[in-house]
Amino acid sequence: MFKHDKNLLEMVRVERPNPQYAVMLQEQLGGPQGELKAGLQYVSQSFRIKDPEIRDLFLDIAAEEFSHMEMVATAVNLLNGHDIDMQGTQPSGNIEANVLTGLAPYLTNGSGVPFTAAYVNVTGDLAADILSNIAAEQRAKVVYEYLHRQINDQHVRQMIDFLLNREEAHNTLFRQAFQKIQDSGSNRDWGVDQDARLYFDLSPGTNHFHVNSPQAPSFQNPDYTHQ
Amino acid sequence: MFKHDKNLLEMVRVERPNPQYAVMLQEQLGGPQGELKAGLQYVSQSFRIKDPEIRDLFLDIAAEEFSHMEMVATAVNLLNGHDIDMQGTQPSGNIEANVLTGLAPYLTNGSGVPFTAAYVNVTGDLAADILSNIAAEQRAKVVYEYLHRQINDQHVRQMIDFLLNREEAHNTLFRQAFQKIQDSGSNRDWGVDQDARLYFDLSPGTNHFHVNSPQAPSFQNPDYTHQ
Amino acid sequence: MFKHDKNLLEMVRVERPNPQYAVMLQEQLGGPQGELKAGLQYVSQSFRIKDPEIRDLFLDIAAEEFSHMEMVATAVNLLNGHDIDMQGTQPSGNIEANVLTGLAPYLTNGSGVPFTAAYVNVTGDLAADILSNIAAEQRAKVVYEYLHRQINDQHVRQMIDFLLNREEAHNTLFRQAFQKIQDSGSNRDWGVDQDARLYFDLSPGTNHFHVNSPQAPSFQNPDYTHQ
Amino acid sequence: MFKHDKNLLEMVRVERPNPQYAVMLQEQLGGPQGELKAGLQYVSQSFRIKDPEIRDLFLDIAAEEFSHMEMVATAVNLLNGHDIDMQGTQPSGNIEANVLTGLAPYLTNGSGVPFTAAYVNVTGDLAADILSNIAAEQRAKVVYEYLHRQINDQHVRQMIDFLLNREEAHNTLFRQAFQKIQDSGSNRDWGVDQDARLYFDLSPGTNHFHVNSPQAPSFQNPDYTHQ
Amino acid sequence: MFKHDKNLLEMVRVERPNPQYAVMLQEQLGGPQGELKAGLQYVSQSFRIKDPEIRDLFLDIAAEEFSHMEMVATAVNLLNGHDIDMQGTQPSGNIEANVLTGLAPYLTNGSGVPFTAAYVNVTGDLAADILSNIAAEQRAKVVYEYLHRQINDQHVRQMIDFLLNREEAHNTLFRQAFQKIQDSGSNRDWGVDQDARLYFDLSPGTNHFHVNSPQAPSFQNPDYTHQ
Amino acid sequence: MFKHDKNLLEMVRVERPNPQYAVMLQEQLGGPQGELKAGLQYVSQSFRIKDPEIRDLFLDIAAEEFSHMEMVATAVNLLNGHDIDMQGTQPSGNIEANVLTGLAPYLTNGSGVPFTAAYVNVTGDLAADILSNIAAEQRAKVVYEYLHRQINDQHVRQMIDFLLNREEAHNTLFRQAFQKIQDSGSNRDWGVDQDARLYFDLSPGTNHFHVNSPQAPSFQNPDYTHQ
Repeated sequence: MFKHDKNLLEMVRVERPNPQYAVMLQEQLGGPQGELKAGLQYVSQSFRIKDPEIRDLFLDIAAEEFSHMEMVATAVNLLNGHDIDMQGTQPSGNIEANVLTGLAPYLTNGSGVPFTAAYVNVTGDLAADILSNIAAEQRAKVVYEYLHRQINDQHVRQMIDFLLNREEAHNTLFRQAFQKIQDSGSNRDWGVDQDARLYFDLSPGTNHFHVNSPQAPSFQNPDYTHQ
Repeated sequence: MFKHDKNLLEMVRVERPNPQYAVMLQEQLGGPQGELKAGLQYVSQSFRIKDPEIRDLFLDIAAEEFSHMEMVATAVNLLNGHDIDMQGTQPSGNIEANVLTGLAPYLTNGSGVPFTAAYVNVTGDLAADILSNIAAEQRAKVVYEYLHRQINDQHVRQMIDFLLNREEAHNTLFRQAFQKIQDSGSNRDWGVDQDARLYFDLSPGTNHFHVNSPQAPSFQNPDYTHQ
Repeated sequence: MFKHDKNLLEMVRVERPNPQYAVMLQEQLGGPQGELKAGLQYVSQSFRIKDPEIRDLFLDIAAEEFSHMEMVATAVNLLNGHDIDMQGTQPSGNIEANVLTGLAPYLTNGSGVPFTAAYVNVTGDLAADILSNIAAEQRAKVVYEYLHRQINDQHVRQMIDFLLNREEAHNTLFRQAFQKIQDSGSNRDWGVDQDARLYFDLSPGTNHFHVNSPQAPSFQNPDYTHQ
Repeated sequence: MFKHDKNLLEMVRVERPNPQYAVMLQEQLGGPQGELKAGLQYVSQSFRIKDPEIRDLFLDIAAEEFSHMEMVATAVNLLNGHDIDMQGTQPSGNIEANVLTGLAPYLTNGSGVPFTAAYVNVTGDLAADILSNIAAEQRAKVVYEYLHRQINDQHVRQMIDFLLNREEAHNTLFRQAFQKIQDSGSNRDWGVDQDARLYFDLSPGTNHFHVNSPQAPSFQNPDYTHQ
Repeated sequence: MFKHDKNLLEMVRVERPNPQYAVMLQEQLGGPQGELKAGLQYVSQSFRIKDPEIRDLFLDIAAEEFSHMEMVATAVNLLNGHDIDMQGTQPSGNIEANVLTGLAPYLTNGSGVPFTAAYVNVTGDLAADILSNIAAEQRAKVVYEYLHRQINDQHVRQMIDFLLNREEAHNTLFRQAFQKIQDSGSNRDWGVDQDARLYFDLSPGTNHFHVNSPQAPSFQNPDYTHQ
Repeated sequence: MFKHDKNLLEMVRVERPNPQYAVMLQEQLGGPQGELKAGLQYVSQSFRIKDPEIRDLFLDIAAEEFSHMEMVATAVNLLNGHDIDMQGTQPSGNIEANVLTGLAPYLTNGSGVPFTAAYVNVTGDLAADILSNIAAEQRAKVVYEYLHRQINDQHVRQMIDFLLNREEAHNTLFRQAFQKIQDSGSNRDWGVDQDARLYFDLSPGTNHFHVNSPQAPSFQNPDYTHQ
């Protein structure tokens, strides 16, 4: 069951309306590395997970991502300002906000492409799902870094800082979950066939990698590996 | 903020696996009249609503729709059964469940089309948004009626009954909300121009409607109109 | 059978080219609340309707919406002007018009997203279809209100006024059609189950709605209810 | 302006319901080579065409394609039969028809993918547009040939025959239109640069084509070339 | 098998970064008339072609189109410049490049719509496929003409010139291939039914075309017809 | 530059046509974990990569994925058999193959959804891109495992074995590349803020993970860690 709490996970403010930046921030509302995508990916994966701890972890993070979505949408709403206006000096505000949604945030990326579940990866295999989530959190962090660089509004920067750090926390948690299951599912029986040891040099050049004894992806406990 | 409760809104069981029906039930997971769509539509509309009661109503129903989504997904998961198998007697189970998701439910409609935010209507105008929601609840009811007719599994029928009745409850609530705001927004200044009173007979035939004094959509309190 | 008449339903002129506004007006050519969507929705619904009057009504309005589409496209074409040019002072004209269509209007929304039938609702149930149409006409009106506010060109404003009023006329007609069928289809047997009377307070707060004796949506004759 | 005539362009009957074939025939309702696509492509192209004869030709054929769409939809509707039923012996009828549309035809291809304007080609250049239309009519003919082979119902075959022959007629007309304009637009100044005369053998093998004096596509009057 | 060669098919340079033009050039990377679309169309068609010469031709051109894609992407990358920045004077650079891809080229059209295989036409019929390819090459030429007109950068113009001329060369080759197969497949048995000889005047007006003895599309050898 | 070699990367045969399985195998032609997606993702990422070794690695693997795509398509083509036929005993063959493509393979997933670049992840950050690729290879392996279990055809199984092992080899290579760059880009300055160390228990329950000193994802050299 899902419940909604009237409080935002973290307060959201903006110094002043900035419709141009609102367009860009929409990316994290309805884009491929956005909060809605993250939440839906983890919820969808959870539907068939049997391990109760990992299922719980996925749903904790999913609920948090939906709460991030609410924060991002709140910021977009404030940045969109008060008045519809595409006639004025505004260089390239969000067209849909001005003609379709009356400045309400909208489930699209920064270019206005509607959110699609084609962004969501679900495999029914824990190793593959958790690696997908680690990669997804890393990509989300990168997008927040890009967004951070392009705004001076201190309140917006603070929100982005918070969200960026939370993605790091999720990344850590998914990595710890991966350690727990890393000898199971698609990670077993890895590299037994010699085809898994070949290198095909189809773009001949300077490559110096070799396929040494292929092994499944695995992480060591970060608390220990860096001692 | 969103939170997840480990209990389902209402318990979900199935008498036996039925992958063929699982395909059909997916319609309400990721289809145009499905639970995800409903939840996202009401949440998205809520982002710019100022009236605290109506905003609260939208979020109550949105959280419930996400909880319905979880119920539908749980049922799909059980109906998908235990083993991937498209070789056997199974006439036309869900292809994606067998090749992509390892029988996990997936955010698509019954034909495998990924969920898209193109289904979601947000206008920034309360009258238009609430009418959209009334229509959406009515369509969701119709889909559940179709689904109800095509399954004998008593547990699945019970779940569909529950969901169908909840859509009726939401419909009633949206209608009551409409009464509250029906003289505002896009419902004001209706039909003042004579172009709003013309009938263009562009498919000449038996039509007997006439555009009598056009007035904005409105509902009377159902408690009184039927006394 | 469809026929085309060389005359526009209503003459379309513009005071001067305005590529920036052409982008915005495209919303009503190929967007979710646009004229193509409306026409295709009513035609698609008509294919299985048995009631001859209502079928006739749907096709009258569908043919008119296609005629509106032609008017909107004609205006977009005039607003796009004479010369491809994204180098100049033009702040954010339609990219596709300049690189793909040679300034011809295109079946996308204002952001360039191609029209998709995912916007079109067809249920096979008259009550649900007509409520969908009432909501659709209300949303189309809202978009025209937004568009009206953002242009000073008197000719364009006149066209938008005409189209906005026609949506009101259609809305009235669909409401009258709803009165005719409101005791049938998905509107029957409403609220018989007690689940239809519950309120789930999943976003606890100030809501004061209660689900009083749930009844199906219905409209009274607007000629009489307001006497 | 568009008008609708209550008569179909040509009467449509079926010997008996055949939901399995209805799925396949949907291809020509909402698929990439379907009637809706054809009609919308020619209408969209017409919006900026200045030559009155060619504009008239495009609109004649567009109106006919919409009329074909109505015929195809009428056949799909009859083939869908009377009762929703995915439980029975029916091997793989249209899922959406059974769970979403109550057996009403739907603007998708045979696999349930919603129609998208991504299928529609508009370039603002008459030579390119007419070549696109010639190719589109040829593809539509091929699809009708495939559909013809897979049905024994004499009435359906008769309808397909009619539609297939009409695509040939349109093809002829577009070819005649091409002859008229073939020295204009993107067909002028062809092959002046030597890069237009090179052959890059990037998949080395048996190819024996050479780029002889490149010239723009052109058709001779078919009445004379074959004398 | 596909191989990659570190050399570009033709060197690509730009005079200076121009993010605004990069947006427009993206059209030919991931748009409906773009290089990726062309390459994938010809490869997809080749999978079932039996004629070794024509199969070879399709794969030669497909490999070249992928090589063009690499050239276009290289130019987009250079035009995007060095620094993410949507705050400055830049009027309407590519939003996704600034928030999602860190200025890397992206498989979308100029408006940010992701590439879709809905653009790709494959029919299993050589006549229809080759006509599709002739039309596709003509449309690609038109887009390059539009792009050429809107840039002063001499290096970019030179690249566009090269690509435009190559599309002409491909067009010539496809036309020669068509001559070889023009009495086969969907081009046989053309116009035998009298329905193929009718003209339906559904948009009554000035049209002067008549359907003279319908014949399948065909080209004469361009070396001889113009002697 | 891309080149095509007439030889397949590895010979492809099938014991007998099996249109039902062809549908499922299409998943790896045009689906989200398919070969086209993989190839386009690595090519797209390569466009802005400066490190010559990593760029070379990406292009080697990309060229191989395109070569896998050709193998999968060849198998689909053979499995589709010789004759269009949806009337017979065939329970649920690919509808599009029978009505649209004349049995040619098509760039869709198993359900007929056209390939979309929405599947492709490009971030401009090497750490995020390589993690995306590791996850993508893991998911591709899982899909091949599902496909392997559902076919008895020894030749097809052999092809799947080959492809599955190659995904393991790529996974290993991407992991080695990650080791090389793991202290750069989005992996630097990780977890410095205390928000990166919090756990939000939004689905209260049995979770026992804690966010211990958050550190960026990293792999140790598999040759040494398992000694």
